[in-house]
Amino acid sequence: MLEDAKTTDIAFLVVGDPFGATTHSDLILRALQEGVSYKVIHNASILNAVGCCGLQLYNFGETVSIVFWTDTWKPDSYCDKITVNRNNGFHTLCLLDIKVKEQSLENLMKGKKIYEPPRYMNVKEAATQLLQVVEKKRDEGPSNLAFDENTICVGLARIGSDTEKLLAGTLHQMAQVDMGLPLHSLVVAGYLHPMELEMLRTFAIDVATFDQLLHERFQDRPWLQDAQ
Amino acid sequence: MLEDAKTTDIAFLVVGDPFGATTHSDLILRALQEGVSYKVIHNASILNAVGCCGLQLYNFGETVSIVFWTDTWKPDSYCDKITVNRNNGFHTLCLLDIKVKEQSLENLMKGKKIYEPPRYMNVKEAATQLLQVVEKKRDEGPSNLAFDENTICVGLARIGSDTEKLLAGTLHQMAQVDMGLPLHSLVVAGYLHPMELEMLRTFAIDVATFDQLLHERFQDRPWLQDAQ
Repeated sequence: MLEDAKTTDIAFLVVGDPFGATTHSDLILRALQEGVSYKVIHNASILNAVGCCGLQLYNFGETVSIVFWTDTWKPDSYCDKITVNRNNGFHTLCLLDIKVKEQSLENLMKGKKIYEPPRYMNVKEAATQLLQVVEKKRDEGPSNLAFDENTICVGLARIGSDTEKLLAGTLHQMAQVDMGLPLHSLVVAGYLHPMELEMLRTFAIDVATFDQLLHERFQDRPWLQDAQ
Repeated sequence: MLEDAKTTDIAFLVVGDPFGATTHSDLILRALQEGVSYKVIHNASILNAVGCCGLQLYNFGETVSIVFWTDTWKPDSYCDKITVNRNNGFHTLCLLDIKVKEQSLENLMKGKKIYEPPRYMNVKEAATQLLQVVEKKRDEGPSNLAFDENTICVGLARIGSDTEKLLAGTLHQMAQVDMGLPLHSLVVAGYLHPMELEMLRTFAIDVATFDQLLHERFQDRPWLQDAQ
C-alpha cells in the first residue's frame, strides 16, 4: 500500500473512525518515514455513537474487548477493567469479538488455507461469559468484581443502521436476549444519573426494573428530582 | 421544534456527534414523551477525531472543559480531573470554551440585547490558565496536581479541516504558541507509549524533547524497543 502510494493516490477504508485502533497510527508513522503524505477523513465510531443509548460519553471509562473463549483459553482480564471503571462510577463499552478469515487449528497445522465461517460475538454470548466469570470468582471466595448478575447493562445492535436495536436490563437479562444480526456491543453501566435511567427505561426489557431504580435514586437524592 | 415535528419533518444540525452533549439526550426524552419519533445520524466528533494526534483513544480518561476566567470567577476543578486521569496514566482531552451571543454584564443589567463578539479559547490561553493554576497551588504549599510546566501536551486546531494543525510540546511551550483560527483543543498527556511518543515527535515544537523522552523510556523499559 505504501509502495503504491508513492506514485499514485491510495485510499484505505476502515469501519468506524480510523484512530479507534492502534494499527492505523503505526501505518501513518511508516508513511511519514517513507515520505508518503496522508490525509485523514474522520468518521463516526461506536466509541461516540454509543451515546445514542442515553449514557453520557463523559461518564465512560476505559473501553474493553471481550474475546471468544476457546476450550483452553478463557481470558477474563476485561472484568478487572470493568471493575476499575465501576468503582469510579464509569460505564464500560465492551467491544465484542469478530473472527473473520480464521483457520481451524487442524487446517492451520496442515497448512490448508480453508477458513472458518465468520463469527461475530453477540450480546447474549458476551453477557453469558461475564456471568460465568462472576460465578467462577464467587466459587473462589470473596470476589473483588464490582458487578454481578443484577448490574444494569445495555445491549446495542447495528448502531447507525435503519435496523439498530437497543435493550436495557440486568446482566442476567442480557444473557437471554436475541438481538439479531451483527454487529453487537455491550455496555456495563456505572453510576446512573436519573436522566440516564430515564433514557434506558425507554428501551428496557422490564420497565419495572427502571421505575424501581428511579424511585430509589430519588429517595437517596431528592434534590435530583427537584432539579428535573 | 418538537411542536413543529408533530406535523412535519424537522432536522436539527449540530457540530460533532449529537451525543457529545447532555442536552440532546434530554431533547430525545422530551420528543418521546410527546410521541415524536426521531432518527439520529451519527458524525465524527473531536472526542474520537482527537486520535489523529497519535494518542490512543483507549488511553483517554474523562474529558474536561476549560472555561474563560472572569475577574471574579476563576474555576479550576478541571485540574483535579486532569490529576485523576494522569494518576491513572490516562490522557485528558480539554475542550476549550466558546462564548457566542454573550452579553456584557452592563448590557445584561440594562436589558440591552447587544451581544459581544464571539470568543473562542485558544491553546495558548488554555495552557496559560493551567500554568496559573500550577503556580497558585505551588504558592499555597505542597501541591496535589499531577502535572506541571514540563508535562507533555498536544495542541489541536481545526481538526478535520484542510488547515488542521497539531503541535506537541510541554505545557510551558503550549502557553507560547499561536495556532491560528478556531476551534482549538488541548490534550494533557498521561503515560506515553513509545509509539505515541513517535507520533507526537512528528509535530513536535522541539524534536529534542521527544528524542530525550524516547531515550529515557527505552532505558527504563528496553523490551519496548525490542518490540518495535
